[in-house]
Amino acid sequence: MSTVWMNQLSWLDYQSRIQQDQPPILLPVGALEQHGPHLPLGTDGLLSASVAADAAARVGGLVAPTLSYGYKSQPKCGGGQHFCGTTSVDAATLIGSVRDAVREFARHGVTKLVVVNGHYENQWFLIEGIDLGLRDAGPGTQLEVMRLEYWDFMTPDTLADVFPQGFPGFALEHAAVLETSMMLHYHPSLVRLDLIPDDGPADFPPYDMYPTRTDWVPASGVLSSAKGSSAEKGRLLAQEVAVRIAQAIENGFSPAK
Amino acid sequence: MSTVWMNQLSWLDYQSRIQQDQPPILLPVGALEQHGPHLPLGTDGLLSASVAADAAARVGGLVAPTLSYGYKSQPKCGGGQHFCGTTSVDAATLIGSVRDAVREFARHGVTKLVVVNGHYENQWFLIEGIDLGLRDAGPGTQLEVMRLEYWDFMTPDTLADVFPQGFPGFALEHAAVLETSMMLHYHPSLVRLDLIPDDGPADFPPYDMYPTRTDWVPASGVLSSAKGSSAEKGRLLAQEVAVRIAQAIENGFSPAK
Amino acid sequence: MSTVWMNQLSWLDYQSRIQQDQPPILLPVGALEQHGPHLPLGTDGLLSASVAADAAARVGGLVAPTLSYGYKSQPKCGGGQHFCGTTSVDAATLIGSVRDAVREFARHGVTKLVVVNGHYENQWFLIEGIDLGLRDAGPGTQLEVMRLEYWDFMTPDTLADVFPQGFPGFALEHAAVLETSMMLHYHPSLVRLDLIPDDGPADFPPYDMYPTRTDWVPASGVLSSAKGSSAEKGRLLAQEVAVRIAQAIENGFSPAK
Amino acid sequence: MSTVWMNQLSWLDYQSRIQQDQPPILLPVGALEQHGPHLPLGTDGLLSASVAADAAARVGGLVAPTLSYGYKSQPKCGGGQHFCGTTSVDAATLIGSVRDAVREFARHGVTKLVVVNGHYENQWFLIEGIDLGLRDAGPGTQLEVMRLEYWDFMTPDTLADVFPQGFPGFALEHAAVLETSMMLHYHPSLVRLDLIPDDGPADFPPYDMYPTRTDWVPASGVLSSAKGSSAEKGRLLAQEVAVRIAQAIENGFSPAK
Amino acid sequence: MSTVWMNQLSWLDYQSRIQQDQPPILLPVGALEQHGPHLPLGTDGLLSASVAADAAARVGGLVAPTLSYGYKSQPKCGGGQHFCGTTSVDAATLIGSVRDAVREFARHGVTKLVVVNGHYENQWFLIEGIDLGLRDAGPGTQLEVMRLEYWDFMTPDTLADVFPQGFPGFALEHAAVLETSMMLHYHPSLVRLDLIPDDGPADFPPYDMYPTRTDWVPASGVLSSAKGSSAEKGRLLAQEVAVRIAQAIENGFSPAK
Amino acid sequence: MSTVWMNQLSWLDYQSRIQQDQPPILLPVGALEQHGPHLPLGTDGLLSASVAADAAARVGGLVAPTLSYGYKSQPKCGGGQHFCGTTSVDAATLIGSVRDAVREFARHGVTKLVVVNGHYENQWFLIEGIDLGLRDAGPGTQLEVMRLEYWDFMTPDTLADVFPQGFPGFALEHAAVLETSMMLHYHPSLVRLDLIPDDGPADFPPYDMYPTRTDWVPASGVLSSAKGSSAEKGRLLAQEVAVRIAQAIENGFSPAK
Repeated sequence: MSTVWMNQLSWLDYQSRIQQDQPPILLPVGALEQHGPHLPLGTDGLLSASVAADAAARVGGLVAPTLSYGYKSQPKCGGGQHFCGTTSVDAATLIGSVRDAVREFARHGVTKLVVVNGHYENQWFLIEGIDLGLRDAGPGTQLEVMRLEYWDFMTPDTLADVFPQGFPGFALEHAAVLETSMMLHYHPSLVRLDLIPDDGPADFPPYDMYPTRTDWVPASGVLSSAKGSSAEKGRLLAQEVAVRIAQAIENGFSPAK
Repeated sequence: MSTVWMNQLSWLDYQSRIQQDQPPILLPVGALEQHGPHLPLGTDGLLSASVAADAAARVGGLVAPTLSYGYKSQPKCGGGQHFCGTTSVDAATLIGSVRDAVREFARHGVTKLVVVNGHYENQWFLIEGIDLGLRDAGPGTQLEVMRLEYWDFMTPDTLADVFPQGFPGFALEHAAVLETSMMLHYHPSLVRLDLIPDDGPADFPPYDMYPTRTDWVPASGVLSSAKGSSAEKGRLLAQEVAVRIAQAIENGFSPAK
Repeated sequence: MSTVWMNQLSWLDYQSRIQQDQPPILLPVGALEQHGPHLPLGTDGLLSASVAADAAARVGGLVAPTLSYGYKSQPKCGGGQHFCGTTSVDAATLIGSVRDAVREFARHGVTKLVVVNGHYENQWFLIEGIDLGLRDAGPGTQLEVMRLEYWDFMTPDTLADVFPQGFPGFALEHAAVLETSMMLHYHPSLVRLDLIPDDGPADFPPYDMYPTRTDWVPASGVLSSAKGSSAEKGRLLAQEVAVRIAQAIENGFSPAK
Repeated sequence: MSTVWMNQLSWLDYQSRIQQDQPPILLPVGALEQHGPHLPLGTDGLLSASVAADAAARVGGLVAPTLSYGYKSQPKCGGGQHFCGTTSVDAATLIGSVRDAVREFARHGVTKLVVVNGHYENQWFLIEGIDLGLRDAGPGTQLEVMRLEYWDFMTPDTLADVFPQGFPGFALEHAAVLETSMMLHYHPSLVRLDLIPDDGPADFPPYDMYPTRTDWVPASGVLSSAKGSSAEKGRLLAQEVAVRIAQAIENGFSPAK
Repeated sequence: MSTVWMNQLSWLDYQSRIQQDQPPILLPVGALEQHGPHLPLGTDGLLSASVAADAAARVGGLVAPTLSYGYKSQPKCGGGQHFCGTTSVDAATLIGSVRDAVREFARHGVTKLVVVNGHYENQWFLIEGIDLGLRDAGPGTQLEVMRLEYWDFMTPDTLADVFPQGFPGFALEHAAVLETSMMLHYHPSLVRLDLIPDDGPADFPPYDMYPTRTDWVPASGVLSSAKGSSAEKGRLLAQEVAVRIAQAIENGFSPAK
Repeated sequence: MSTVWMNQLSWLDYQSRIQQDQPPILLPVGALEQHGPHLPLGTDGLLSASVAADAAARVGGLVAPTLSYGYKSQPKCGGGQHFCGTTSVDAATLIGSVRDAVREFARHGVTKLVVVNGHYENQWFLIEGIDLGLRDAGPGTQLEVMRLEYWDFMTPDTLADVFPQGFPGFALEHAAVLETSMMLHYHPSLVRLDLIPDDGPADFPPYDMYPTRTDWVPASGVLSSAKGSSAEKGRLLAQEVAVRIAQAIENGFSPAK
């Protein structure tokens, strides 16, 4: 029974794993959000789950079912909520989903939970969910929670390889080279390279406006071009991310007591 | 672009589908819950998604990402919350998840949403989520929501075939013949026929006790035996359910205005 | 001081009872909901309180004030929310009412609380309220909570007597023979036998639709006919229910520690 | 069908009343709270319901089921939460109960709702519930809500009669002469005159302390003596209150549009 | 470092104060609410902070940042929500603000927290916030909370001096002599004596109406005249209030353990 | 009446301003959070209010009272919640505070609201509060909301002047050169230059851990050194920020309709 997917294990197999090895549990969090004409709506969930699975394989971990719906898309990072297909949750829902998961894994006796985020907008609601879940679990809990955005594990060296003309920064990397390359690596059949738009990088003022200004965002939903994406770049990125998340998991938690 | 999985479509493809065909959107809801030694923790989500996909294929519908975490397991229908691996959400979280989904699909212009439930305990929180989501959407919304438990689409005739010695009723059908047969049909590699326990049917008093009595439930977590399950029975059930849900979708919604 | 009604006791009398006898506290939960032309809006609360009082009298228990407003009526069990007079609460309100009651009775030192439900739609929100109330009370609480629907205490033998032509099942028993007979037993002056409609049993598809389809439900609000109701049948049912709930209370709780 | 109790009407009778006469609906709100050795725990709910019924009889109104559980008791007005038997709700629960009621009565087409409060601590949570309920109902609603504490309808003249040695003010009138006299009028069998304690009036500092100081409150729970109570005084007070609330209802709402 | 304002201290200075002297922390709560043509919108927050600072100076206490937004204004005490400029919060927000503050000060090791209220409508939501905050902090907390309205510390003698023709009671004292005099004492430049309206005292019926009746309230927003206000009266009141709150703080808390 | 502080205006003055000029309303949001040994706990609120006032003065705007309590401090941006003095709110409280403010300003007829954030951790909860407030206000509202972190208005040129050896990025700028310089400009008496610690820049891994690792953060709470701060640098930064926020306000809102 060598799967990394928790939902494919029977409860007895899961229980032995928890009791014997204290495997880290990885919880991917994504979104259902427009990713331009060339990537699917589920990109963030697919990538966070794939990354989690690769890292889990390296550390003997298990991957819990993905939280597939993310916090409301914002113009500067995901295009905004006006796109058809973007299907998001309010803060309270995402906070509750994570809070409940933390409380439940603590009850199972899990000691290492890794929340693997693939949607920029989720970050702070994950933090609140973890904080409240640990508050529920109480001061005596053995559970520690690691929280991360997977792209933060890409090194400058690799980014330099991927962007020979200079890495433009994570800010506009929505449906752009990083995500497209990783999708080409993990889910090539879901990428339509022929449909990558030519939109130059979006240029945003240093403030937000609500109701959001739909004219700030290219009609395609892409914030900077995905031209130059390749499966090979994706493989490079995915491998580095998995290796380094695995290292973080091995080094980041407290030693067993 | 013939997939039924919404998360594999780009937003532009999704948008054309919505604008042209008004496809029904099917939202599977499951649970992460012990299902005995022979079935995986994710059974409810896997089955509701499979059933939804089969029905969607028949009516040109799309399947949204599964809500993989269900309401807290109860002794009489899922064994209870004391099992390691059962990972559940509070009522408010499940209600919020459905409420937000309803509000978002209404914004997309979807007119037909089908909530396909695969975990008995979810039912009433789905109802509340739908009610509040429609309240949010306001009286002018075009969205109608169908809500169903997939097993209610099995006919007495088919149940008589599946249970030649008489159908014992849905009450104890947790990790028993129906679910096991359908898993053998849809996900045979995840079923361990050799581990099916011999536990006779559980016998419950006509009341609940809280904190739940763990000694009411067999240690295996199985409420009645799965002996007699087969992929062929699963095929029969799955086919009937898909056909009849498809019919319900075709007949149950109001004609387009 | 032989009353069963908690609200008629002074706090000092109540306190001595709690400290000396550890009486079970019964909390009836009802609804304010259409019950056809022949039964009053308060039927569910009146019956659950009457049943609770009869059971309490047998076990030396006390009956707390009824929660008189229930969860939103659904077409298949109570006709639906479109009827004038049906006055319901959202899930959060009912959950909160029960949660607070559980926390307060735990503070009093009560060890046995029995939630007596008389409105089908309430069930799962009572479960959540009890679960959260016990979470608030903490792991050290002495309080145990029994939860029941009173009709589940009717035996097949008695139902065979009440329905000489065969018991059609609880599904459509809204404002039908069981409730009407019990109201004739407990509150005959509130029943208008002359107004019992002739509506045949309602026939529902195996799914729900929202906004609810008002044309699925007879205009009278009655889901199957109450013809054949009698006070004598009501007496039989009421007596059996009270006796058997009393037995459950005597046997179902843990022995005093 | 001359009852004032809404829960005793069938929905059809209720509906005709609403459509023909636009009767005011009175919603009593009480508490389950210690009221000294001589009055029952349910005093506040019993009195608010009785007052509501008397007023309703005068104006052709209907009385909805009492909200029997009130906001947490405070030392200066109800003795505090440390008494056994006092069974209270959190703010959110009481707010939700009233909010839902307001939204439902608005849906029925009710135009006049009167919230009759009998527990001092409830006041501000009723205000919030009404405000949120009307927000839910939306700007187009025809519903107006009157909110009152029944004792505010006692005139100085009557209070002078009831307290020949001077009215000490409402502040300490918990389980004292006003409530005891009104209980002697409405529910004499529930009053134990022989158990009225001699506690002089409680003397509180001009601030509150939390956790509450139980030694601020007499052990009996009575804040000032009920000596001098009589059924005749109760009759006088009850009559005045009913007459004047009835006048308020007749004059206070906007004329029908 | 002699400031009373907590937000002007570094955390290290604050920490030494807490560890060495256990200073009381005073939390002022105000409102942003119309106060007639002659007083500013921020009157309630300005006065509660000034009073808190004066009291803090006498007892070596610290004043935390003011909660500047109060509960929704009511016609009888603040004129109502229909005035432009009145900017209020829902109950849940105010409750949450206080709850969080209580939980945080308990974490700091504070043992004496004084909630100084300057807006009548806030009172009960402060109570709920304190109660829930202490529930969060748990039974082991060392924190005690004092809660007060500052005007309750004015003595009859002083009120007799301030109102030579008799004190009309606190009921209508919104933007009237007490608040105006205290503002003349603390913030004379923010008072426009020339704009004090002549409105006689408002006369309210013994009930509330919702939606609120704007014609119950003078167009100026002043419930009784501020004529006769003076800085000298303000000084007298402010001094008495500060002295007596300081005494309450010194005597009202439990001795250090 | 030339003040920019809304709470110093009478409601009539405020109302005329709203009706005549449609001034932008600036809402500063801060925190009460450790800022090392040399800066006060209230730094974030003091700076956001000062910046808002300077910008308001340039555009004829008004500054609403500061929300002085911010979201829970995180190790990487504010040191974390383990510092004594850091006094934070849960997500729901901050969301509610902003939501209510948005709804109220919409009711006033305000068309331009500017949320000026001075605490990094607040950002996403402000977004949710604005989104829910606008949802409450409804699609017909005239209100637009601008949201900003003030430091995003510093230009590379100015940062190059302030950091002659290269700008290390905003990431560690907690209680460091930018904030210290601006405090020296706005509130010099609250800065203790002599206490600036020598802590080198903190070095964080690319993930978070919960419970937070207190040993990741220097004991002083300072994430990178404030050496090199000066009032002159503060003046430069403050001026640029004010000028550029003023420009954003003048250009960023829709023209009056």
